[in-house]
Amino acid sequence: MARYAYVNGRYVPHGDAAVHIEDRGFQFADGVYEVVPIVNSRMVDAGPHLDRLERSLSELTIAMPLSRKVLELVMDELIARNGVNEGLIYMQVTRGVSPRDHKFPSGVRPSIVMTTKRVRFLTQKKLSDGVKVITIPDIRWTRCDIKTVALLPNCMGKTEAAAAGAYEAWQVDGDGMVTEGTSSNAWIVTHDDKLVTRPAGHEILRGVTRQTLLRIAAEAGLTFEERPFSVEEAKSARETFLSSATSFVTPVVELDEVTIGDGTPGPLSRRLQGWYLDYCAGLKNSA
Amino acid sequence: MARYAYVNGRYVPHGDAAVHIEDRGFQFADGVYEVVPIVNSRMVDAGPHLDRLERSLSELTIAMPLSRKVLELVMDELIARNGVNEGLIYMQVTRGVSPRDHKFPSGVRPSIVMTTKRVRFLTQKKLSDGVKVITIPDIRWTRCDIKTVALLPNCMGKTEAAAAGAYEAWQVDGDGMVTEGTSSNAWIVTHDDKLVTRPAGHEILRGVTRQTLLRIAAEAGLTFEERPFSVEEAKSARETFLSSATSFVTPVVELDEVTIGDGTPGPLSRRLQGWYLDYCAGLKNSA
Repeated sequence: MARYAYVNGRYVPHGDAAVHIEDRGFQFADGVYEVVPIVNSRMVDAGPHLDRLERSLSELTIAMPLSRKVLELVMDELIARNGVNEGLIYMQVTRGVSPRDHKFPSGVRPSIVMTTKRVRFLTQKKLSDGVKVITIPDIRWTRCDIKTVALLPNCMGKTEAAAAGAYEAWQVDGDGMVTEGTSSNAWIVTHDDKLVTRPAGHEILRGVTRQTLLRIAAEAGLTFEERPFSVEEAKSARETFLSSATSFVTPVVELDEVTIGDGTPGPLSRRLQGWYLDYCAGLKNSA
Repeated sequence: MARYAYVNGRYVPHGDAAVHIEDRGFQFADGVYEVVPIVNSRMVDAGPHLDRLERSLSELTIAMPLSRKVLELVMDELIARNGVNEGLIYMQVTRGVSPRDHKFPSGVRPSIVMTTKRVRFLTQKKLSDGVKVITIPDIRWTRCDIKTVALLPNCMGKTEAAAAGAYEAWQVDGDGMVTEGTSSNAWIVTHDDKLVTRPAGHEILRGVTRQTLLRIAAEAGLTFEERPFSVEEAKSARETFLSSATSFVTPVVELDEVTIGDGTPGPLSRRLQGWYLDYCAGLKNSA
């Protein structure tokens, strides 16, 4: 089956999908993106992902490249053409092509690119076994709430994690408090069974999965606190886990070579993971 | 005359010059760049620019895409094809094309893109009249010494400057000290005729023009200090100016709506500008 990408109005074979070298996404990281998981042939939380896309664009004064309705149609069409039942759709919007100049140009049409990828999410070993995480200093800019493609520090952190045999790196601010992972949000479960995750300020991305988990937790009557937590608190927490659109709820069983709990995924992490997967399985297309 | 770009081994018409949508420069800002000015048909400080390119790549563990010798030949060839006597050559190197994953891939060939642009540098009004500058908080990451394409905060700052009727924005750290402009280094001249500019740490880019100016100043017997200076010190300085590969020495005559000196380019700024232009005019091709 051929694999297509969507690039500025056309469905093109993936290998031929290209943007101009003066696309501001390429020259200035002047663009934003979203990744929407697909489970059981349905997009998970497409609505909130597109809400966030609109917010990121608005923060950077980039116009929506297509109306929301058309964007949704294109997403459906690309997923159908590529026959993706389980995987993800990636979309990137940049300010567009313009002669190189730092200043935002006016009158430029935004670029939009979409790809899909098949991923066997539900049988991933990390979901059942949990993962190792390291901590690193947070060296990023001060507007991590905008989901931009200026991801170089995140890539550096993820690479450092992999070199240490870990799945993810939790970034730590100047006060020793965890901000978030390089591509996921960070959570702990305290010894009195409270879920804790950092509030959604400018230092972290407002994760869509994070928001859904907070809702699920509230519906299940769990207590949770949105507050910063330190690396030390995380190391001695009852459980730790991470969340993202493509890692769902992934238990963290080791942090900086300190075993968390008994070194296996904790009961609350597993319950939340189950509820989240049930939520995905029960979804109608939410776009 | 057709305008060519160089893209991964080929000279292509500028309008057709493209990179794959999974180039890591486009998806992750995982790449670096250099801008080399061309004056009197000669590249200015091409050697130091290529030294810095190699250092930026090395910091990110990206290989040089071509040997330095071949790179220099391609630069010469592109400038010749495009008939550029005065202007600039822009080159961008990214980690290359790879299926999207934050972690640095291995075994990927770096991408290289070059373009040229004609600019009438020497008759620019800003050189003779000076410019206005505003100050803004420095919101960037902590490795501004690496010349990456993750330039979104710089673009935001430059746009804010333009909206305020200014040419540049000087970024200010948490201690109230100026780091640098969004695309230039910042300088003051004290009332006892000392040149002051921030030391080249991780907070600023080690400007090639900045380095050349320090050398010219030393040769001319001027005294200078590499130390941070505050916004307040700059506002009450005898002179202020900025430097970059394409703005040379540009006097700053107004900072945050405070007139510097008598509101015209200061004598030391003008002398330095003259010496720098003499230096450019006297250059043999330094690549």
